[in-house]
Amino acid sequence: MPLHPQLAKDCLVVGHYPLCQLLLMLDANYPWFILVPERADITEIHQLSDADQQQLLQESVSLSRALECAFAPDKLNIAALGNIVPQLHVHHIVRYRDDPAWPDPVWGRVARREYPDDSRHDVLDRLGRCLPDTPEFSFAQ
Amino acid sequence: MPLHPQLAKDCLVVGHYPLCQLLLMLDANYPWFILVPERADITEIHQLSDADQQQLLQESVSLSRALECAFAPDKLNIAALGNIVPQLHVHHIVRYRDDPAWPDPVWGRVARREYPDDSRHDVLDRLGRCLPDTPEFSFAQ
Repeated sequence: MPLHPQLAKDCLVVGHYPLCQLLLMLDANYPWFILVPERADITEIHQLSDADQQQLLQESVSLSRALECAFAPDKLNIAALGNIVPQLHVHHIVRYRDDPAWPDPVWGRVARREYPDDSRHDVLDRLGRCLPDTPEFSFAQ
Repeated sequence: MPLHPQLAKDCLVVGHYPLCQLLLMLDANYPWFILVPERADITEIHQLSDADQQQLLQESVSLSRALECAFAPDKLNIAALGNIVPQLHVHHIVRYRDDPAWPDPVWGRVARREYPDDSRHDVLDRLGRCLPDTPEFSFAQ
């Protein structure tokens, strides 16, 4: 299913769960991932079918555990906002007490920072080492 | 279970689902509700038992549908942040294109506004008219 142009512009497609695409937000300030259910014309979680709601929860929990394993966050920030990008997407952001926006939410707080060189690969490698427990996930080619 | 002092100070207890307390944030800028699972020492959704995760999802969907019925939002903002208040709590905020923070997230954007007189009762009455479909919810006395 096509991504909203803003998500396609700001993010890298990391891989796929059964329901969601997993994106990496290209902002090196935080390990910031986004789940996007591959369902058309859905803007709110409660518009998903019951089965898809369950699946989204499972994938969110799977991702949260992988983020905890990979990045040892002080806190996860999980949010479905969508005021600007209506396509349903759920942020999963690794937060640290010494990150540039702490303790505020990340949105609108600090300018986006490009990943230097290929350092986003380091982030994906760290995540990848924590995802073997989730056989339903497949990395993008 | 005791609320974190910051939640107790900023919010009114509206009632109870089987798992969560339902709070109204005392900020008249937005109809802003919060679900707080009544489980000790939980800071992240994925730390809840599987059954409690399912229940939280059901209560979040129930609340979301009631908010849609009561307030006809342009968008719901649903978020578990917790950088300042560690007790797990999930924001459910009714957003309109003409609200004071739109399209930004609400946190840190606009000073809190007290509900004038007893107008918070109007908000709760509107919600109450949309909650009969959720027999598991009981209003606080």
